[in-house]
Amino acid sequence: MSANNPILNPKPKSHRAEDFTHSEVQLANRNSGIALEALRHDITPIGMHYLLSHFDIPYVENESDWKLEIRGLVENPINLDMQTLKSLPQVTKQVTLECAGNGRALHKPHWPSMPWTYEAVGTAEWRGTRLIDILYNAKATSEAVEWVFSGADSGVDSGVQHVFERSLSIEMANNPDIMLAWEINGQALPPQHGYPLRLVVPGWYGMASVKWLNKIEAIDHTFEGQQQVGTYVYKKDNNDKGIPVTTIRVKSLMVPPGIPDWYSRKRLLKSGSVTLHGRAWSGLGTPISKVEIGINNHWHEAQVFPAKEKYAWSRWEFEWQAITGYHELGCRATDANGDIQPIDPPWDKSGFGNNCVQKIEVWVEDDISIKE
Amino acid sequence: MSANNPILNPKPKSHRAEDFTHSEVQLANRNSGIALEALRHDITPIGMHYLLSHFDIPYVENESDWKLEIRGLVENPINLDMQTLKSLPQVTKQVTLECAGNGRALHKPHWPSMPWTYEAVGTAEWRGTRLIDILYNAKATSEAVEWVFSGADSGVDSGVQHVFERSLSIEMANNPDIMLAWEINGQALPPQHGYPLRLVVPGWYGMASVKWLNKIEAIDHTFEGQQQVGTYVYKKDNNDKGIPVTTIRVKSLMVPPGIPDWYSRKRLLKSGSVTLHGRAWSGLGTPISKVEIGINNHWHEAQVFPAKEKYAWSRWEFEWQAITGYHELGCRATDANGDIQPIDPPWDKSGFGNNCVQKIEVWVEDDISIKE
Repeated sequence: MSANNPILNPKPKSHRAEDFTHSEVQLANRNSGIALEALRHDITPIGMHYLLSHFDIPYVENESDWKLEIRGLVENPINLDMQTLKSLPQVTKQVTLECAGNGRALHKPHWPSMPWTYEAVGTAEWRGTRLIDILYNAKATSEAVEWVFSGADSGVDSGVQHVFERSLSIEMANNPDIMLAWEINGQALPPQHGYPLRLVVPGWYGMASVKWLNKIEAIDHTFEGQQQVGTYVYKKDNNDKGIPVTTIRVKSLMVPPGIPDWYSRKRLLKSGSVTLHGRAWSGLGTPISKVEIGINNHWHEAQVFPAKEKYAWSRWEFEWQAITGYHELGCRATDANGDIQPIDPPWDKSGFGNNCVQKIEVWVEDDISIKE
Repeated sequence: MSANNPILNPKPKSHRAEDFTHSEVQLANRNSGIALEALRHDITPIGMHYLLSHFDIPYVENESDWKLEIRGLVENPINLDMQTLKSLPQVTKQVTLECAGNGRALHKPHWPSMPWTYEAVGTAEWRGTRLIDILYNAKATSEAVEWVFSGADSGVDSGVQHVFERSLSIEMANNPDIMLAWEINGQALPPQHGYPLRLVVPGWYGMASVKWLNKIEAIDHTFEGQQQVGTYVYKKDNNDKGIPVTTIRVKSLMVPPGIPDWYSRKRLLKSGSVTLHGRAWSGLGTPISKVEIGINNHWHEAQVFPAKEKYAWSRWEFEWQAITGYHELGCRATDANGDIQPIDPPWDKSGFGNNCVQKIEVWVEDDISIKE
């Protein structure tokens, strides 16, 4: 077998292939994905949770200068400092967040933007206070239809200069699970995760969880900011008005078994029994009802362990008898709504919401010793 | 001016350009670079320090099971557990680490591997114990010429299955600044930085600082492991026997001024006075003697502040009067040995040691308002 194994008998690398741009690689360098083997951890260690910052990370020397302003169509405009926020009732929640662009680079051809393959996900334990309590005190007037959440970060996208801003309808923002968070995994937010304050909207793709939050404004119309209508919209083509990107689609990932080839990340594995395992999650905390493991496109049901909290991912396991040769592994989750991952990327012009089945290429050998 | 400004008047994105592979993008997603604006921090926050793991990050549930074994040509073979290690005299050091492959993607064409542009750098405060004290107790025999440091991570590279291992000569390993570290920035090492124990070799490129360190062996010959002679070697071409990659070359980076275009990271800036600033560092703690700022290839001397510690980067500043139009900015450091950064990438087959001058494209406008 070894003579046919391209991990152990690689072709020389060539200088040119495929089609990612310098700008995409630059984005992949400054943003961070989880290493797939870190899916082992219930709570993703700091520095392994995925991270996407559209613009520059604001420099906030000390949270004592930070103000959160709640204004617009409210009966009681409010200015809150961090000390006051931290004196409010606190909640802690495990939340799985995923970037709406995760899987974009699996489209062929793909839209030029942050070229995620599978890594834009993580589960953190956030600590903060409920958004709803603060909004209740500010009290939106009867004319208000949306809340607009503003970050301290700004820049240009598609020629439009803007501050990073997202909205939620008054009704959506009443979800008592939405938090204003100042801690992640028991520590103050690091700068890149929104220090000193961020929104955390469980069950939604990450763009809703505005970092460096300094303003919440009630408005009487549908918000049409660049990050609301210009970017995060599912579109068939350029002429499509599209559908807003909102909640996370059902998805699962596997910790790649065996050991990697450094460059290709294809896997080398010793034959015999191996426990395949990984995570599965869906939007709005919808439970995972089934995970199937594909071995060369034959599907087998895995054991699914319930999520530790409503918005956290579930763990799954499957015992595989690995026999010598080449195998393609995959995992496919179904949630309690009956939504199931597609085998191929669902079409979207900009590559949003790609929850297609992960593909892992594994070469199994009898005569190797692997210390994992 | 605005009509000519490609940030404010971008061309539509096209699907295809340039030449990075899917494998390279996958590596860029799982490894992490610093966001250049985080060069503001003297100590890089956890999760922003660059990170390169060749193979999978080993899963170590609890350090109480960890053993460091010192063996081979020693008079006193030693097994150390973490509790014993932590009872030894402790040292804390600020160390700037950079990946030897940093800048690889700036070569055209480039070698297919981790496609770093500028981001593979960071400064951390490491805490641990001196390597030399432990080696002194083990006492290499007179036949020993090198120490081999082994990590718990293994995989395949170029068809060769191996554990990540690097060596230092007996003489080099006597440098009292080399540490066995178990803390970064006042916290236990996170898994991805080598939990529970790693080597930190200040002044050398990062490959020498073996993570997940579990074995040190004295040998009587020159170590020829894959990561010593197969990977980290400067070579002109495939026939060149080459020169080992060792210490960090002099380099500097600038915090990009103004605000970014999301995709290209080109910069938009308001005209007027702006403080350009950034960092400069060199190998083996050699001080930085000069930093020059290039404004459209006219060079001006910046103010350099001494490094806070021997192996940490220096900060530099330069006041620029930004006038309307397009500008190319750069920074170029010289160290106390007289080594200076080249304008163009120094040739190396695999793209190691690229310390060429950073290039930042900036469009300055009079009539914009920018909240940085």
